[in-house]
Formats: sequence, C-alpha cells, structure tokens
Amino acid sequence: MGKDLFLDDLVVGQTWHGGPIEMREADIIRFAQEFDPQPMHVDKAEAASGRFGGIIASGWHVAAALMRDFVDKAPFGQTPLLGLKVDDLQWRKAVRPGDVLSVTREIVEIAPSRSKPDRGTISMRITAANQDGDVVMSFLNLIQLPKRRPVPAPIAEAAAAHPPSGS
Amino acid sequence: MGKDLFLDDLVVGQTWHGGPIEMREADIIRFAQEFDPQPMHVDKAEAASGRFGGIIASGWHVAAALMRDFVDKAPFGQTPLLGLKVDDLQWRKAVRPGDVLSVTREIVEIAPSRSKPDRGTISMRITAANQDGDVVMSFLNLIQLPKRRPVPAPIAEAAAAHPPSGS
Repeated sequence: MGKDLFLDDLVVGQTWHGGPIEMREADIIRFAQEFDPQPMHVDKAEAASGRFGGIIASGWHVAAALMRDFVDKAPFGQTPLLGLKVDDLQWRKAVRPGDVLSVTREIVEIAPSRSKPDRGTISMRITAANQDGDVVMSFLNLIQLPKRRPVPAPIAEAAAAHPPSGS
Repeated sequence: MGKDLFLDDLVVGQTWHGGPIEMREADIIRFAQEFDPQPMHVDKAEAASGRFGGIIASGWHVAAALMRDFVDKAPFGQTPLLGLKVDDLQWRKAVRPGDVLSVTREIVEIAPSRSKPDRGTISMRITAANQDGDVVMSFLNLIQLPKRRPVPAPIAEAAAAHPPSGS
C-alpha cells in the first residue's frame, strides 16, 4: 500500500504501475457463467469456431480485475476516495486465458472544487496491456479526494512568528 | 430472448426494460472479496460505522449484474453485437443488500457506418434504479451491429415482378 496522498500532493503526469494480473481460464469461465454467459466467454468448443477463435474474457471481468489490482496497490494509501465517473471505457483487444496484464494509471487532470475548498477531483487514465504490450482496455476515471487538512490559522500564525529551531 | 434485430430495425427512443435484479448480501460480499475488497463492501462491522452505514455493493458488481440481465433478456436476439465503448458511467446511489434493481435501456442515437454499408452503431442509455425508483447507476453504451443482409438485387426484382400469392 502506498502512503496516504491527498489532492495537494498530486501533479498531472504522476503515474503508477500495476499488475501483473494473470487471467486464468477457469476464472474467465467462472466469472462469465455468473455475469456474462455468452458462448465466446463460457463455451470452449463454440468459442473455438467463433470470431475470436477461442475463449475470451468478459470485458466486465477485465474491469473487475483492474479494480482488484487498484485496491491491492492502494496508490493513495488510506485516503478516502469517491469514484464519480468512468468515461471512454474501451475494450481494444480480446483478453485470452493465460494473458498477463500490466496496468498504467496516470493523472491527466486535477481540479480543486470551486465550492468546497477541502476537496477536489482528479481524472486518471487507466490503461491495461497484455504481455505483448498490446493495450486491451483503457478508461478515464474521475475520482474525488480530500485535500490535506490545513493547519488551523492561529497555530499557523504562531508557527510563522516562531519558526521551529533548525529551519 | 427477443427476436433478432438489426440496425435497420431500430429507432431512436426504442426502449427495453430489464430486471428484476436482486442484490443479495452474500453475493455482494463474495464479489467484493474477489474484486473489490474494501471494508465498505466486505466487512459488515466496519461498514456499519463507515460513511454508508452498512455494506454496499461494488460498483463493478452492479455493472456485471446488469450485463447478466442484458445477456438473459437478449433484446437483439442472436444478432452478433460488438460493445465498442462505455461513457458517462456513474454510480449515483449506493446499492445495498436486498435492493432489487430494474433496468431501462433506450436507444439515444443510431449511426450507420459511412465506410462499411453493412453495419453501424447505436448508442444506448442504460439506467438502473432500485425498488424506490432511485437511479443507482447509468451509462452510455456504444454498440456495433450489422444491418439486415439485403435481398440480392435479381431476386428482389423477381419478387417485385411476381409478388407471392396472398400478398
């Protein structure tokens, strides 16, 4: 887990790397049997003769696997986050059994709230690639997070009047 | 399952209704343990004292549950679809154990391909609401689907010259 990061700690271009995420065949089929039981996801024989030539993962499975990696890596530590929106979510290439995904998470925009001075939003571009470097999925995630709690004014003034020794 | 529908069968405003989708506590916890193990999704005690006052479903679980409903309802029958993009995916209200979701899927745009006359895209607005009518999640889904295979010209001419009896 990373250290706690707040809005004021972040800069555009700041990037984290995630993964590896191994997409196992049994997991792909199990997920799809529950949530996306189309032949290309659950039926090896039918998938083999279909347009992808074999089983591929449900796009929602890939999205969920990336969420798990985000929780494990916790790039913002324990800072409370609120996921507000996902845009431009694209599944660019099929994910197949045995694929191992890597993830890049980059801050592309930072917007302090105009009405609420204690918080703001960041936009992160999340990109997942397979072991060959092909991008398989990408999306933009709008996330709300707090600023650091400001030092209360009286204490801040006192600190300015009496800088700590050694400064 | 609905009957097979192609691009030329569709009109803007066409709407399908899905659900009911019951979000059971055991499923919510099990999904989140695998894909989104944050306390608000997996730890009843910690969730109770947290900002939502109890367990809530992972947003990706809700998305996956809607996918399952889409596969079950098959509004386009067996017509092969290609999900190209998701935009404006928002989790508007927490989904809690016992919530029963209904779904509305409405075509908001139809765009025949300019370069490939046999296909086109539709944009669907998907909205999920709970048993109180509160919208919990919504998104736009860009989907590619084929046009009906045109009747080959010579046969069409023959049919026009010799209408089937009874017409």
